Amino acid sequence: MTRSAILLLSGGLDSYTAGAIARVDGFRLRALTIRYGQTHVQEIEASRRVARALDVAQHVELTLDLRGIAASALTGATSVPKDRPIDAQDIPVTYVPARNTIFLSLALAWAETLGAHDIFLGVNALDFSGYPDCRPEYVHAFETLARLATKAGVEGTSFQVHTPLISLTKAQIIQRGLALGLDYGLTHSCYDPDPQGRPCGHCDSCLLRAKGFAEAGVADPALALLR
Amino acid sequence: MTRSAILLLSGGLDSYTAGAIARVDGFRLRALTIRYGQTHVQEIEASRRVARALDVAQHVELTLDLRGIAASALTGATSVPKDRPIDAQDIPVTYVPARNTIFLSLALAWAETLGAHDIFLGVNALDFSGYPDCRPEYVHAFETLARLATKAGVEGTSFQVHTPLISLTKAQIIQRGLALGLDYGLTHSCYDPDPQGRPCGHCDSCLLRAKGFAEAGVADPALALLR
Repeated sequence: MTRSAILLLSGGLDSYTAGAIARVDGFRLRALTIRYGQTHVQEIEASRRVARALDVAQHVELTLDLRGIAASALTGATSVPKDRPIDAQDIPVTYVPARNTIFLSLALAWAETLGAHDIFLGVNALDFSGYPDCRPEYVHAFETLARLATKAGVEGTSFQVHTPLISLTKAQIIQRGLALGLDYGLTHSCYDPDPQGRPCGHCDSCLLRAKGFAEAGVADPALALLR
Repeated sequence: MTRSAILLLSGGLDSYTAGAIARVDGFRLRALTIRYGQTHVQEIEASRRVARALDVAQHVELTLDLRGIAASALTGATSVPKDRPIDAQDIPVTYVPARNTIFLSLALAWAETLGAHDIFLGVNALDFSGYPDCRPEYVHAFETLARLATKAGVEGTSFQVHTPLISLTKAQIIQRGLALGLDYGLTHSCYDPDPQGRPCGHCDSCLLRAKGFAEAGVADPALALLR
């Protein structure tokens, strides 16, 4: 029997790759995308393209406007920083308070409703922006919470948060995805695109993506489309 | 200096009492109410009355329609059961998957944004409906998660989820609130009110409330208003 899993899908290249790995692992996917008030709404469009490419059984877009409670450069509270050192150790202003906890909670609700026990999350803890809710110890703490939070947990089952990218570099993620035949031209990563949706090339997300493609030795198809 | 706290406010008597205890403890409150697709929207109106009575610094109502991902009698997936034994041990169909985890995550986002470290939650684990996400071990797991999830946690601070009612009976909660001068006529508890907003008197929430007032030896002012 095919097992169902929930994929938290942003429309970026990480969640696309995590979803493709879930498919290869034999999971039937349902994708959850949150419209949380992000200024880069282009990722919502990208999530639809990626959901189609992943052939998900269902794609839910949930609206949850965090702008009134969660201040971040990504929710318009301040401007997106440009050309930060890629190895900066501080947590940048693009951090959205409790975002992954909120998203995982929503995925957990859906998983429990469906009788599913698997959630895929495309976090990685190497080429990332230093967000605390991308670390392995955080993910494990969420699994513990999920077991205690739910009816399923009381009944003795548990939930697994799969993070297949967590110890990969961005280049390794891209190489893995290309080996699976993924078209990264479908994805959107930039935090601060121009009105036409073109990536700025200077935010953390653009810089990490560019570094990844450079190290992987391939051109970014999303940039090729712009030429 | 007055410390700020986030109160998860439903409009029922528990969250009102938890908020009043927070005020007595010297916290400045901001209240968060979630419009999650509950069929008993009367509790939203009640939450506004209670927020005023508690003199909160700010009351945010957040819309997050869970109906597409979280099946429950409270989100209309099935009908609200009536006249269940009040000491039934099973988890009833009014359980909303991951609801407290979602709500606490949102409170955590707001707390971190404000620089607050305290969240008040009116759960109780005695006269309750057996929901797993009302138990002390669940609350402690959330505190652990909150520390790992956030920037504040990385910086060495932590979050406390205050559950001042967790080991009280419903009668004790009511007695505590009455001693604090609370007007429970402002609150709404029923899961299945009639179109005029009057409580059904037969759902779990009505039965627990009635038992609480009976054991406390006082009349329920919300019912008195209906006469």
